[in-house]
Amino acid sequence: MSEVKQKANLAKGASKNLVTLTTRQKNYALNIMADALLKHQNQIISANKQDLQIGKENGLSNSLQDRLAINSARIESMSEGLRQIVNLNDPIGEQLEEINRPNGLLIRKIRVPIGVIGMIYEARPNVTVDAAGLSIKTGNAIVLRGGSSALNSNQKIVKVLREALSTTDVPVEAIQLIDDPNRSSVNEMLKLNGLLDVVIPRGGASLIQNVVQNATVPVIETGSGICHTYIDKYAQPEMAGSIAFNAKVQRPSVCNAMETLLIHENFAKEHFQSFAEKYREADVQIKGNNMAKKMVPWIEDASDEDYATEYNDYILNVKIVNNIKEVLNHIDTYGTKHSECIVTENEENANQFLQEVDATSVYHNASTRFTDGFEFGFGAEIGISTQKLHARGPMGLPALTSTKYIIHGTGQIK
Amino acid sequence: MSEVKQKANLAKGASKNLVTLTTRQKNYALNIMADALLKHQNQIISANKQDLQIGKENGLSNSLQDRLAINSARIESMSEGLRQIVNLNDPIGEQLEEINRPNGLLIRKIRVPIGVIGMIYEARPNVTVDAAGLSIKTGNAIVLRGGSSALNSNQKIVKVLREALSTTDVPVEAIQLIDDPNRSSVNEMLKLNGLLDVVIPRGGASLIQNVVQNATVPVIETGSGICHTYIDKYAQPEMAGSIAFNAKVQRPSVCNAMETLLIHENFAKEHFQSFAEKYREADVQIKGNNMAKKMVPWIEDASDEDYATEYNDYILNVKIVNNIKEVLNHIDTYGTKHSECIVTENEENANQFLQEVDATSVYHNASTRFTDGFEFGFGAEIGISTQKLHARGPMGLPALTSTKYIIHGTGQIK
Repeated sequence: MSEVKQKANLAKGASKNLVTLTTRQKNYALNIMADALLKHQNQIISANKQDLQIGKENGLSNSLQDRLAINSARIESMSEGLRQIVNLNDPIGEQLEEINRPNGLLIRKIRVPIGVIGMIYEARPNVTVDAAGLSIKTGNAIVLRGGSSALNSNQKIVKVLREALSTTDVPVEAIQLIDDPNRSSVNEMLKLNGLLDVVIPRGGASLIQNVVQNATVPVIETGSGICHTYIDKYAQPEMAGSIAFNAKVQRPSVCNAMETLLIHENFAKEHFQSFAEKYREADVQIKGNNMAKKMVPWIEDASDEDYATEYNDYILNVKIVNNIKEVLNHIDTYGTKHSECIVTENEENANQFLQEVDATSVYHNASTRFTDGFEFGFGAEIGISTQKLHARGPMGLPALTSTKYIIHGTGQIK
Repeated sequence: MSEVKQKANLAKGASKNLVTLTTRQKNYALNIMADALLKHQNQIISANKQDLQIGKENGLSNSLQDRLAINSARIESMSEGLRQIVNLNDPIGEQLEEINRPNGLLIRKIRVPIGVIGMIYEARPNVTVDAAGLSIKTGNAIVLRGGSSALNSNQKIVKVLREALSTTDVPVEAIQLIDDPNRSSVNEMLKLNGLLDVVIPRGGASLIQNVVQNATVPVIETGSGICHTYIDKYAQPEMAGSIAFNAKVQRPSVCNAMETLLIHENFAKEHFQSFAEKYREADVQIKGNNMAKKMVPWIEDASDEDYATEYNDYILNVKIVNNIKEVLNHIDTYGTKHSECIVTENEENANQFLQEVDATSVYHNASTRFTDGFEFGFGAEIGISTQKLHARGPMGLPALTSTKYIIHGTGQIK
């Protein structure tokens, strides 16, 4: 039996056990895991050094090296993340509906674990800890397949976490890590219907596309974000400037940052020049449509491809538009249904935008940067779903649950 | 552009319009559709006669001919089904959560349409009407791909429904029927990411497996049912007999009928012989394990394959067991996670069964035959989901919705 299949089988076995655990038992294990990370941090950091060394030899970029690096502060933050999960409400067992039928049947809809989660992700080793913690809290077993560049770090982290579990009621086999760094192990996971109940990809567009294209196991797609901000004719200029600047500049590398700014012509005439200057001071490169270029001659041409690009960088498309219809069409054509914002004091335009724009999160007068589990008050997230089924937007603990109908009868027959 | 792609595009266009409709506009259209079916019933029945004629020539079985046949009573029932959908609450716009953040952001989670639903199904033409009605009520456009044996009937029904829509605010293009009877049109639908938001297969195991194996569009799997009833040592004999008989005999052809009866040895010793007699009187063929055969010599051998078969017929497997652990293992091995029942007066055993059996619907002291949208009080169902994500069990209107976060700010930035 292949490594992937063998570990998925062990995870499935563990998941049967996890279903029966109480919140207290799960929280106890999470705290022990948090302690163990701190206690064994030197081992983890030294395994991480190996990964960094290999990364340097293979020419891993500085920013990827930074994402990969683990130090004492990062271990502390992983450990603290587990303790925060302890403090979250346990969704398992929660009753979502209670139906009393005329024939006397009592039907209750209850939250239950999904079963076994497959997680496919890239370089950041903190995902290993977060995903394991969120899974255990929700009574799920997890099969982790991290990026090969973090293999040593992930192996050590998982070893530490599993050793911690061995002293608790949570089965050690609830956490599985795939050691095989070949792509074939990913592709094998994608076809494990009956063993994996869901696969969650987290990473770049090509990783996610591979999963979506090849999985026969259900997928929760976490996606890229080509996010827009629309400054309406009726926007308050100061607010508009502040939101548009924040959405691009505060942290351009993340999925909820803005890539394209749409501005109503009337507003742009008065304010776009000063906005552009402010972006220039922050070293933001601007590309624009003809109307934008007429107003600010130094900006470059924006192509269709630019509008369809998630820069994750200090680059911004600006399109001056004549009406909200144009805005809706643009977002429909180029958006990735992640986070979209309208800045306006006009309620009618706001409502039209909020209703007709199809995205996980639509904002009126606030920066798209807030689309995030912590900012929404969920406490932790396993990713941001950009698909329409099961979960949409930041995924907290309930996104890692399924449901089941429990029917209490007194001998009813049909 | 292929027929499938062209029609999916039209549906996507219509879906943008559907998002903006009020409940009143949708209900008006549903009533007009219901009227139109009655008014044009002769056309529909005569198109159906063509299908039946072709079916006979192609050797379509009597039971399939019966499923395919449309008469005046069946049209009335389709029409009545649409009016029942009118009376259901419209889930669209429903607020599921309201979060007030310390920074003043108001975050609301709202039910929205999924967008465009692809429906792939077999012979029964009433599914055409039900699926169209449920989709419109939930603001979704639908692309229907019915079985080729019902093509003439479906074409006429869809023509009538679309003509009805042309006098309403619901766009005609909200209902699309794929005319191409080749399997390639199904396979094309399965890859239409970006146009179809979900595919729902309804039909036999091979249809569903084809969809699950080949779709890159998210799927809601509606499944087969290998359902079990377990009669515990502590079962009330009369209740146990009545539930076990009903679950098998009342309508064996449906997915929530029982295929395998598990009986605790102690109970079986006293009662299995009389149960077996009752089944024999109802022409139910019984296959059993060794212990069962010892008690009732005339029953046949049950193989592993039998336990894994959805008979949908007057055939029953009986397995005598020694303890509940054996029951849980058997259901885990052979069940399809559809509907499972324990009959017992012992609360502890009941609770263990209800918690540990992994299925859409788990019953204590009631027949599995109740797993059904109408019986659960949902009023109508688009199918019974046997997967863990998005929707599980009978799917009413909320299963055809997605959600969206609407965030109201006053200039918040991060």
